[in-house]
Amino acid sequence: MILCICPSPALDVTYHLPRLEPGGTNRVRTVSHRPGGKALNVARVLHALGTDVRVLAPAGGTTGAQLAADLAARGIAADLVPDAAETRRTIAVVDDAGEATMLNEPARLSDWAGFHSRAAELIPQADVVVVSGSLPDGVPGTAVAQVVDLARDAGRPIVVDTSGPALRAALTAGPTIVKPNADELAAAAPGLEPPMAAAQLAQRHGTTVVASLGADGLIAAETTGRLWQARPAARLQGNPTGAGDAVVAALALGLLDRHPIADTLVTAVALSAAAVLQPHAGEIDPADVTRQQDGIVVNEIEGGRWA
Amino acid sequence: MILCICPSPALDVTYHLPRLEPGGTNRVRTVSHRPGGKALNVARVLHALGTDVRVLAPAGGTTGAQLAADLAARGIAADLVPDAAETRRTIAVVDDAGEATMLNEPARLSDWAGFHSRAAELIPQADVVVVSGSLPDGVPGTAVAQVVDLARDAGRPIVVDTSGPALRAALTAGPTIVKPNADELAAAAPGLEPPMAAAQLAQRHGTTVVASLGADGLIAAETTGRLWQARPAARLQGNPTGAGDAVVAALALGLLDRHPIADTLVTAVALSAAAVLQPHAGEIDPADVTRQQDGIVVNEIEGGRWA
Repeated sequence: MILCICPSPALDVTYHLPRLEPGGTNRVRTVSHRPGGKALNVARVLHALGTDVRVLAPAGGTTGAQLAADLAARGIAADLVPDAAETRRTIAVVDDAGEATMLNEPARLSDWAGFHSRAAELIPQADVVVVSGSLPDGVPGTAVAQVVDLARDAGRPIVVDTSGPALRAALTAGPTIVKPNADELAAAAPGLEPPMAAAQLAQRHGTTVVASLGADGLIAAETTGRLWQARPAARLQGNPTGAGDAVVAALALGLLDRHPIADTLVTAVALSAAAVLQPHAGEIDPADVTRQQDGIVVNEIEGGRWA
Repeated sequence: MILCICPSPALDVTYHLPRLEPGGTNRVRTVSHRPGGKALNVARVLHALGTDVRVLAPAGGTTGAQLAADLAARGIAADLVPDAAETRRTIAVVDDAGEATMLNEPARLSDWAGFHSRAAELIPQADVVVVSGSLPDGVPGTAVAQVVDLARDAGRPIVVDTSGPALRAALTAGPTIVKPNADELAAAAPGLEPPMAAAQLAQRHGTTVVASLGADGLIAAETTGRLWQARPAARLQGNPTGAGDAVVAALALGLLDRHPIADTLVTAVALSAAAVLQPHAGEIDPADVTRQQDGIVVNEIEGGRWA
């Protein structure tokens, strides 16, 4: 079982309307909603692939109840820790031209101790752990690092996807894999080209670093010093939100099946490409994953040469 | 008891943020919510004045549950008829300059028959009935007229505030008072100055017509042919949403206490002015109501002369 730990889940709401008039009264034509937050997107991708997945997230208030209902309706197993803070909503206002305006409510978690102790109970039951997303207000900056510590103590591999101080703290705890994007990689190892930045972090923290570079694909730095680059057959037009979550799903699958990193990178690029073809983060069509595997190129970068 | 019937209630949500960036990702600083929808605003104004008030509204889904909790937290007695349709939200995105962008979800009511039968049970228990707001999808265009019929059959006075075809249908059912705004009045009696339009509707339908004309105050046409005009002492700067709902609250109070229309108009202008001073519809400070009564001018319009 892959356990996806989501400290800041959301109910992702989409409003469709002809055109957003700032300062005006906008009648929303249609309303839809689905579970959101990065680790829940990872869990939805894994669930769509038929993987045994479990979600751990706080849930509060009526939006938390809606999140629970939406996860149950999708058949995704979830441990939702009741919290006094209302679960946040994100609203995507999408107009007829396809332009999206995001309105993101702030995330808050009231009972970090309760959430942490539930994580400590569940992690030993997992084969692989994912912790992903930003830190909500109300939790210590070491929250992700504490989850990494729990996984290490339980002997479970863990993939981390977060940013800023939470990423820096998590790195010092030595997770199995971290997945920064280009900006997060540059912030964590300033002044270096992406492969060298990834290699430096991997060496320093004993962590495999897989960085998602958007249309440039992925690079991976192993703790052995080996460096890899993976690219899709063609640049895809589509929705980039959720592509990074699909990469994290592939990394968790690679750990579950003990695949070599070069094979995992193929899956990661294919899942990421399949995610780009969907309108919402956390969604993939498994048929797209098969199609997108054609033509993916994975190269080892010799001596840090950045092709 | 004043029964406020709300066919299309809402949870009114306010997002504060520094500046709305269309097409961008906007981090919401604070989130607040309160019961909304015109008849619920009327009920909240009456409740703030210490009046015995009861709400009848449909409620569905988790937003319906939040609406129930918010009404209970304010101590407002509510009969919420469970409905399969999720209660709508309205979102006011307010920036630091005070500009508001409204996003209004569509309203829907699945079980009009169930709602109508609950209205039929409650109306005989009321001293005065208010029905206010737009018609949700899923109800017949005669829905407000049907509520007027129930009140007439039960011998209860009723105030109607709605628009378009629902207003035209309600007028034919002969409510005690209708409260159009300037646009609704012009649509119901095209080509006439407001006093003559109000007088025509009053004569034709046997209904007192009180029209709210924004900063120009109110006009009232009685079925006897008498015409009145009421103006505040001064034009107020503020939030015009909810001013009409405050007028409806005053009209219901006037029916409850059997006040002559000229006295009711003073209360209506004062309540309306107090509502304009509040940031959200449905709110008043009773101290403002007292203050705003000073200087209100009520005149009878002789021979339709429009001062």
